[in-house]
Amino acid sequence: MAENTQIVLRSIPDGKLEESHFERRVAPVPQPGPGEALVKNHLISQDAANRAWMRGATYRQAIKAGDVMHAYTLGEVVQSGDPTLTPGDLVMGEGGWQQFYVAPARRLLKMPRHQPVSHLFSLIGVAGKTAYHGLVHVGRPKAGETVVVSAAAGSVGVFVGQIAKALGCRAVGIAGGADKCRWLIEELGFDAAVDYKAGRLREDLAAACPKGVDVYFDNVGGKVAEAVLFQMNQHGRVVCCGVVSQYDAKEMQSPAGLPGLIVVKRLRMEGFIVSDFPKEDARAEQDLLRWAAEGKIKVVEDIIDGLENAPRGLIGLLAGENRGKRMIRLQ
Amino acid sequence: MAENTQIVLRSIPDGKLEESHFERRVAPVPQPGPGEALVKNHLISQDAANRAWMRGATYRQAIKAGDVMHAYTLGEVVQSGDPTLTPGDLVMGEGGWQQFYVAPARRLLKMPRHQPVSHLFSLIGVAGKTAYHGLVHVGRPKAGETVVVSAAAGSVGVFVGQIAKALGCRAVGIAGGADKCRWLIEELGFDAAVDYKAGRLREDLAAACPKGVDVYFDNVGGKVAEAVLFQMNQHGRVVCCGVVSQYDAKEMQSPAGLPGLIVVKRLRMEGFIVSDFPKEDARAEQDLLRWAAEGKIKVVEDIIDGLENAPRGLIGLLAGENRGKRMIRLQ
Repeated sequence: MAENTQIVLRSIPDGKLEESHFERRVAPVPQPGPGEALVKNHLISQDAANRAWMRGATYRQAIKAGDVMHAYTLGEVVQSGDPTLTPGDLVMGEGGWQQFYVAPARRLLKMPRHQPVSHLFSLIGVAGKTAYHGLVHVGRPKAGETVVVSAAAGSVGVFVGQIAKALGCRAVGIAGGADKCRWLIEELGFDAAVDYKAGRLREDLAAACPKGVDVYFDNVGGKVAEAVLFQMNQHGRVVCCGVVSQYDAKEMQSPAGLPGLIVVKRLRMEGFIVSDFPKEDARAEQDLLRWAAEGKIKVVEDIIDGLENAPRGLIGLLAGENRGKRMIRLQ
Repeated sequence: MAENTQIVLRSIPDGKLEESHFERRVAPVPQPGPGEALVKNHLISQDAANRAWMRGATYRQAIKAGDVMHAYTLGEVVQSGDPTLTPGDLVMGEGGWQQFYVAPARRLLKMPRHQPVSHLFSLIGVAGKTAYHGLVHVGRPKAGETVVVSAAAGSVGVFVGQIAKALGCRAVGIAGGADKCRWLIEELGFDAAVDYKAGRLREDLAAACPKGVDVYFDNVGGKVAEAVLFQMNQHGRVVCCGVVSQYDAKEMQSPAGLPGLIVVKRLRMEGFIVSDFPKEDARAEQDLLRWAAEGKIKVVEDIIDGLENAPRGLIGLLAGENRGKRMIRLQ
């Protein structure tokens, strides 16, 4: 009987996520019943949100101890018990950290044979579309405005800054370390970048944003968000996309001055997830593909080989070691 | 020479505002120059925001130590150096805590001879319009949704709950004390009211909002806002109108869980001030007058006689002792 290697979340972390929270397990390859399909995973998406799912129910069910670690995956149908799917079909699903999985056909999204396949997670996948929908539909920047994005070198951040430039805005990134900051400016065309690890965040941000901040795309929350909130212009918009600085924290720390700053500056802070804009997906894909073809957007990916590296990959992502969209590639 | 009694802010409070921060002063009645008018104050508006103005520049200049205490007033032109104004005209302006003031004609807003005059501060004044614009244009509740308002017995709160009812929503007030809560339900028609001083805010709020909270009109910030935020429904809206719980605080305390809750629940938190909606003012006035005529809105006012009572009036307002719109009436 064929084997299915899996990585299981042994226990829910209370604080920092570590490799000891995971363990490898080998199970038999499952068999699809009527209306189901067996899928072989090719690419596993790694997202900061994976860590948030361990904290409890969010916009989706929580991950429980003993579960195969949840994750979105791209894979190929190898056996089908449903007329809508045939072996060879490329599908996206909640496949998790394992080689094979079975799911009802209605939970599997048939994907186009886009090349490279990895773009289905980056440029026109969850990363690019999160950046696009959040910036365009929530932040709504006008040309000439200043857009600041945190976790700017991360999977979503690299797109936010480049989309902001494509829309005629000043793009300022916040990232950890001088190297990343230089890379954002020299490789991705950001107008400025601020190293939050340098210890002068408010001053450096003020220098990078001489006309204040009109739109802040927040991926991190906490003290970084606090620093940007104090630099917001009247009627500024804060796109609340995630709070990666907080996922590993025992107690979350709200930015100071809320909601007073929202009143005084007449700010709009608004949360969203990528699936909130289904009607806008086709347009987002068109724009992103066109900007990439025109050279306005560079697609940055960070692909790690081997399922066994998934725990280390996610832990590193939470520490900010990735540049661009991180994925795990399976053999 | 005629005398002008004034109340001056002696020093900026660092913590709780007290009567000792104010002093009475007598000055000569000022004379209007060309383009100016002399106004005799009849009614002084008392607003929680008056306290916020002492904390620094907001959407307007800060109050400085030694200033005649700033406030919006309704008064009568007694002498005019400008062709657009004649003695007897009723005007609204930033008249402050004093009997007479001189201002440039362009800073004086000619008001209709509405009866009673006090409605120009309450029903169709800053209180009613703040409630209307904030609820209708920022909160945008749909009929059947649950609207929660804090400082519900206050000048703005009494209108928010009644407007919510007029729009077909469930109206839930948060106020201090069982008496006020009963009054909100029995006199103003709120569906439910929660006493935040009873020490069971989260539980009582959950019981008062069995279908969760769709729109929260926040006048207070702090721990009360925190309790409501945790009860918000997906895609809920938080109308950020003021943070009265924080104005007297040495250090402001942000509600816990931000901005994480905004992401997970896809909330929109948005600040505004009443003057952000000039194009909607006429419609607001029409609706408010009609609802009052139809008995859907009771106008609640809390008028105190005597300029000398202005400090006590404002301090009491910050402690939540007023019901409805508080004003000081001068002889």
